[in-house]
Amino acid sequence: MKIGILGTGQVGNLIGSRLIETGHQVMMCGREANNQKGLDFVKNNSENASYGTFAEGAIFGEIIFNATNGKFALDALKLTNTDFADKIIIDVANPLDFSAEPPTLIPEFANTNSIGESIQNLFPKAKVVKTLNTLAIALAVNPKQLNNGDHSLFVAGNDENAKTKTITILTEFGWNIDNIIDIGDITASRAMESYLILVVRLSMALKVPMHSIKVIK
Amino acid sequence: MKIGILGTGQVGNLIGSRLIETGHQVMMCGREANNQKGLDFVKNNSENASYGTFAEGAIFGEIIFNATNGKFALDALKLTNTDFADKIIIDVANPLDFSAEPPTLIPEFANTNSIGESIQNLFPKAKVVKTLNTLAIALAVNPKQLNNGDHSLFVAGNDENAKTKTITILTEFGWNIDNIIDIGDITASRAMESYLILVVRLSMALKVPMHSIKVIK
Repeated sequence: MKIGILGTGQVGNLIGSRLIETGHQVMMCGREANNQKGLDFVKNNSENASYGTFAEGAIFGEIIFNATNGKFALDALKLTNTDFADKIIIDVANPLDFSAEPPTLIPEFANTNSIGESIQNLFPKAKVVKTLNTLAIALAVNPKQLNNGDHSLFVAGNDENAKTKTITILTEFGWNIDNIIDIGDITASRAMESYLILVVRLSMALKVPMHSIKVIK
Repeated sequence: MKIGILGTGQVGNLIGSRLIETGHQVMMCGREANNQKGLDFVKNNSENASYGTFAEGAIFGEIIFNATNGKFALDALKLTNTDFADKIIIDVANPLDFSAEPPTLIPEFANTNSIGESIQNLFPKAKVVKTLNTLAIALAVNPKQLNNGDHSLFVAGNDENAKTKTITILTEFGWNIDNIIDIGDITASRAMESYLILVVRLSMALKVPMHSIKVIK
């Protein structure tokens, strides 16, 4: 599948590499026509890797990952100059304000809002799915590194077909379908984003490189 | 141990009954000298159950549970007319605003604040510990009902000795000490309180009477 990734940081890089490993064509996208991290990504991956601007990635991809810094996510997506009609946007961004110690949520996206639903509201023709933001991204794209993959991941979004396509990618990453929990429409992004505050505290308390949660019922 | 419980609702009732089952003396406390739910609690439990006002409970208990409605918790605690010097307050209150659908956090306690730390700030001589608020209270006081008790609980607070005493009570409830995670000082109440938004969505999605999470590392 053709997939555009907006954001050339570590999150975009790890998602992009894993997508190529699992057989997809990936355009890594930055704001500028020449972005060193994006060009390095192309060099470090196979012929299935390319680089483009945000605008080019939004055209290229059937699915677009939003892997931008949460603080600037909306502005970054506007740079595509598209309405994302019928495109799936998989939003993995986090609204953490790292200027606070420990981090808090960026007020704009806290409690009665979220990045996920803000993107959906900004691009009503897109099909936004929130996922992968609730654990370290290296583990999120390769879950079998921990507990043989037996831990939980969440998805939220308004469009059932988009969630199904997203879940297919997640299973390619190694997630067992029984461990992927659909928690509802895109406003449930609030749950996944505010949960990060607990993730931060767990990281401070557990002092281990990888941790996650398994929902028990 | 002598324990006062502020709040005669279901939460206070379940905690109080379980404390009596595990050998403690409990004063169930309401705003008024005569509270039907409080008197029913005394009738339904052993000679170790008594009823009193908030003020009486704060004097009676070496440990005080705050089991009041989150929205009114601070005002309720002020009714005790005490500074809770050297008392342990175990805060189990939730800052959910049920006028929203699904519920959001009460803004006063969202993101950069929490009920737990607000109580600590209001009563600096008290030793406030936050716990038990992250799952259904019936399960929280009797964790072995689910997965043979193998799921996780969190504690937060500034005073190590108060956390140790709280953890002793939690193990009496049936929690395995390895499943109780100390996530830091009382400001970590934010993590436990904002996590409720995910709990609410999981309750809607899973449609099972009991669920919890186990931290995997």
